[in-house]
Amino acid sequence: QVVPGRTFRWRGYYDYDLNDAHTLETQLNVFEDFRPAIPEEYRDSEFVFLANIDPVLQSMVLDQVRSPRLVLCDTMNYWIENRRDALLETVSRVDYLLLNDAEARQLAGEPNLIAAGRKLLEMGPSRVIIKKGEHGVIMLGEGTFFSLPAYPLESVFDPTGAGDSFGGGFLGFLSREPEMTEESIRRAVVYGSVTASFAVEDFSCRRLGALTREDIEARFREFMEITCF
Amino acid sequence: QVVPGRTFRWRGYYDYDLNDAHTLETQLNVFEDFRPAIPEEYRDSEFVFLANIDPVLQSMVLDQVRSPRLVLCDTMNYWIENRRDALLETVSRVDYLLLNDAEARQLAGEPNLIAAGRKLLEMGPSRVIIKKGEHGVIMLGEGTFFSLPAYPLESVFDPTGAGDSFGGGFLGFLSREPEMTEESIRRAVVYGSVTASFAVEDFSCRRLGALTREDIEARFREFMEITCF
Repeated sequence: QVVPGRTFRWRGYYDYDLNDAHTLETQLNVFEDFRPAIPEEYRDSEFVFLANIDPVLQSMVLDQVRSPRLVLCDTMNYWIENRRDALLETVSRVDYLLLNDAEARQLAGEPNLIAAGRKLLEMGPSRVIIKKGEHGVIMLGEGTFFSLPAYPLESVFDPTGAGDSFGGGFLGFLSREPEMTEESIRRAVVYGSVTASFAVEDFSCRRLGALTREDIEARFREFMEITCF
Repeated sequence: QVVPGRTFRWRGYYDYDLNDAHTLETQLNVFEDFRPAIPEEYRDSEFVFLANIDPVLQSMVLDQVRSPRLVLCDTMNYWIENRRDALLETVSRVDYLLLNDAEARQLAGEPNLIAAGRKLLEMGPSRVIIKKGEHGVIMLGEGTFFSLPAYPLESVFDPTGAGDSFGGGFLGFLSREPEMTEESIRRAVVYGSVTASFAVEDFSCRRLGALTREDIEARFREFMEITCF
């Protein structure tokens, strides 16, 4: 689906702390009046990733998919500040919510990340996955908590897109699993982290374009080695 | 060993970010001219924890212990800034170096924590353990890397002393193990984290004073549950 006009643009920079993206400018452009039309062949998708766009559009996408097994939703500070009600509506309709630590604190209005995660669970999703950049990721659910450190990288080239890569790796793994169990969902978090760790190694999606299945499996095994005790 | 005079004092505060202790004042007082005299019955100690004091004094302690199996050394920003040469001398004589993330970056002169850890290894210790507060701990060694997330606490009452508690739990566990293996050293890191997670739950060492062995083992099992995949 392509509409005429300028594409969405986000301009920002990273400081000393690569965990922290500073937004300089967000131009909605074609997203301003965009109405997503999901092609018929996608409407029976079992796994839906609502990547970061206007939560109103995310809801429109949801209206068009018939009976997904799992809906994962990402967002960002811009929507938390400017479309809070629409975002809460979308969040109440999804299975898993994915956001970074600053966004989780902001959306929950709670500085402690664990307490923030619990508040976000009350907004509807059955799982809340909070990305912490170089500090890894935590996943909260009813009666369950999982914490995974980040893959140790001596240099991070470009953190842009790490969240989307995480979402792709996470859902890609889960979609091939026969069923969703606590173990498979945790492993999906590890595969998401593996994918994100490759994404930040080079500019844009260059590293992902050159990635092999064996690269991914090797790094998954490394995650096991560095975390087991 | 007690000498007359005012005791060492550190005054500081914690902001929104409890990982970050802001030093307002450090009074050395009796430490200024202190010369530690280790009692004869301690000179054969197998496990030595050089807690955070002037690195010159840490070296004097080391001179008096005969053949320890393991020496663990802590430090802080004050010594990195004001006694750098003496600190490097002490660090070159110890087995394991324990510090927090800001101190590791400062001592290594390197913003990336993994790269900083590698530089610190070159200064002599066979292991470098970097505490990251709510983000857990990493341990680097020759050809080995271990990363453990923090225990998820919804409120942190007082982070002062978390590092010392970590050191105590770490060495306490290792001293009871028949031998030091990669696995036992990693488990010692978990026991250190368990001890620190209790220490920050209340002011001063109140919580540690009320701690039972069963509390510790239960939290160790929780660490396994929240990290396994």
